[in-house]
Amino acid sequence: MIVVIGAGLIGLGIAYELARRGATVRVIDEREPGRAASWAGAGMLAPYTEGVEPAAYATFCAESLRRYPAFVAALKADGGVDARLRLDGILEAAYDEAGVVRLQAAVAGLAARGIGADWLERDAARMLEPALGAAVRGASLSETEGQVDNRRLGRALQAACEALGVRIDAGAGRVAIEADARRVLGVRGPEGFIGADAVVNATGAWAADLEGVPEEARVPVRPVKGQMLALAMPRGLVRRVLWVPGAYLVPREDGRLLIGATVEEAGFDVRVTAAGVRTLLDAALAALPTLGDLAVAETWAGLRPGSPDGLPFIGATALEGYVVATGHHRNGILLTPATADAVATVLEGGFAPGIEAFSPQRAAGPPQDVPETVAKQSA
Amino acid sequence: MIVVIGAGLIGLGIAYELARRGATVRVIDEREPGRAASWAGAGMLAPYTEGVEPAAYATFCAESLRRYPAFVAALKADGGVDARLRLDGILEAAYDEAGVVRLQAAVAGLAARGIGADWLERDAARMLEPALGAAVRGASLSETEGQVDNRRLGRALQAACEALGVRIDAGAGRVAIEADARRVLGVRGPEGFIGADAVVNATGAWAADLEGVPEEARVPVRPVKGQMLALAMPRGLVRRVLWVPGAYLVPREDGRLLIGATVEEAGFDVRVTAAGVRTLLDAALAALPTLGDLAVAETWAGLRPGSPDGLPFIGATALEGYVVATGHHRNGILLTPATADAVATVLEGGFAPGIEAFSPQRAAGPPQDVPETVAKQSA
Repeated sequence: MIVVIGAGLIGLGIAYELARRGATVRVIDEREPGRAASWAGAGMLAPYTEGVEPAAYATFCAESLRRYPAFVAALKADGGVDARLRLDGILEAAYDEAGVVRLQAAVAGLAARGIGADWLERDAARMLEPALGAAVRGASLSETEGQVDNRRLGRALQAACEALGVRIDAGAGRVAIEADARRVLGVRGPEGFIGADAVVNATGAWAADLEGVPEEARVPVRPVKGQMLALAMPRGLVRRVLWVPGAYLVPREDGRLLIGATVEEAGFDVRVTAAGVRTLLDAALAALPTLGDLAVAETWAGLRPGSPDGLPFIGATALEGYVVATGHHRNGILLTPATADAVATVLEGGFAPGIEAFSPQRAAGPPQDVPETVAKQSA
Repeated sequence: MIVVIGAGLIGLGIAYELARRGATVRVIDEREPGRAASWAGAGMLAPYTEGVEPAAYATFCAESLRRYPAFVAALKADGGVDARLRLDGILEAAYDEAGVVRLQAAVAGLAARGIGADWLERDAARMLEPALGAAVRGASLSETEGQVDNRRLGRALQAACEALGVRIDAGAGRVAIEADARRVLGVRGPEGFIGADAVVNATGAWAADLEGVPEEARVPVRPVKGQMLALAMPRGLVRRVLWVPGAYLVPREDGRLLIGATVEEAGFDVRVTAAGVRTLLDAALAALPTLGDLAVAETWAGLRPGSPDGLPFIGATALEGYVVATGHHRNGILLTPATADAVATVLEGGFAPGIEAFSPQRAAGPPQDVPETVAKQSA
């Protein structure tokens, strides 16, 4: 029996992968879903546009993107829910000369690595995305990236897990790990003790605080707040994922246009603030003035799990049988398939290639600066 | 029997005044309350800060402000609900030299009319309102203006009306006036015919469309959209009504800080748009950066009744027994007491001084430009 704590995308992904491999799995979430990164994100699958570094991390992200089509297809086959994967490219628009130079260099870099990317002059960019403002100078097109509907992905994972016999307890209340001097024994919650051969901590921004974990097996994750909003959009006004200076835009098939996201060190605060909304609207409307007349449909905030060196924590810890998978920061949705595969392999006692750099037992590196600003700023 | 159509502040105010004078009154509202100006406004009582013109209108506004304390006290005595009138002054802040010059001239003009007003240098202004940004240059203080909680005022009017025996039917569905060649006979609605000696049209932005009104008794009002938002504010962060370039701020005792308002020609559209929210937040945060960290508590939009020449329509029409009270645009809450008194006097057959310029029978003047922009721009 394996217990996964955390019913977000990472936790459910691991449970699903374990169940496919024949394990008996139970998922426990202390909270009701809602404010975690899985639900609050936009579902962008953008390792190239994000410019993920260092190389080991970029490779892992690319591998996870590669796995996505089969992953989503398997979920639909097993549970019947389509997560709406769309790998129809991501456009990043430049509005000044510096942006043009930076994006052209990025396109050249991707092409050199054999990754489909093109530079589009202004007219070509506006042909693809007519809503781009007249001030646009050009855009890069990363051809193989895209998006998944992360809330649907959550439902797809839940349905597929349940179809494979995984028991999922959400809103379970406070749980704690139990361990003896040698190894993990199970999990104790409000409903009693659950014995387990292994326990996976997939509690995202809350992973540092799981009770019962010995000091040497803890991971220093912290919440990184992201605010987002959604506009009600006429179908096709924005066609694919679009990056503009200071914001990204993700069009959903249900007619919503997601605009994100701030990156803020604000503890566990999930308030939607005046400055957060203003920053997102300023960025989006400066680039696409035509969005001004759209109705504001929703605003929300969520918490990503951040790590001191910017890399996730994936794998075994100093406590035998206790495995963690957190610290994915802004890449958790993208990394769900690869993380699930790697953790399942670790739990089977196998060797999971490519996650050495993410070891929870690595020495804490120098803290990485996380500026309190929107997503990615144009250089 | 007098039937008032429209259960907004103007309609309820008229019904209340009529009931106090001994009339039998019934109020019918086609809709449920919610998106009309009465509910959507901020309750600012600011004839001087608004710079209302021409003189006849400014006088009527000042008279209504003068009536407010007794009006609110009477409502509380009759119905038990306190509308929270606060006449503790309105501060208007200047952020550039042009603003300083304009506001100093306004202060001098008010002082010359015997209206309490002062110019405050930067430090004095920040002493009164510490949240004003460091960039503020100074502020005018209009000492006798203030605010009323318009949603509470609606409840206070309703309670007082009911205490005086006024029947109020909200959500009554479509109603129409019935008249013969000579005069109004009553109102026909889904529940049948209600005979009336007089009918008052107080349907605000919808007043032009009341069914059954002969052409010569119609008034050309149109909806003027206003978007607003509210932040959740620590008590005392903003202490009194504050005008800054492009927005006004109204602190409520319940901890909300209202920020308004756009002025848009958008028909009956009450969507909250990206551009509307952005405009308000840009203006408020530029002037008071400390507001950035406050949570966005609410956004909404409402419809003011606008008239071609910017003046309200108050009084008798070409159809005997049919009286209108609409077209108050941004001054409906302020003008509720004076309008109620004037209309009640008209219905008693008396002479209501000061409303000659607002006659519904006046020739339609040249259309007044209503710019699609926020409230009042600093000159």
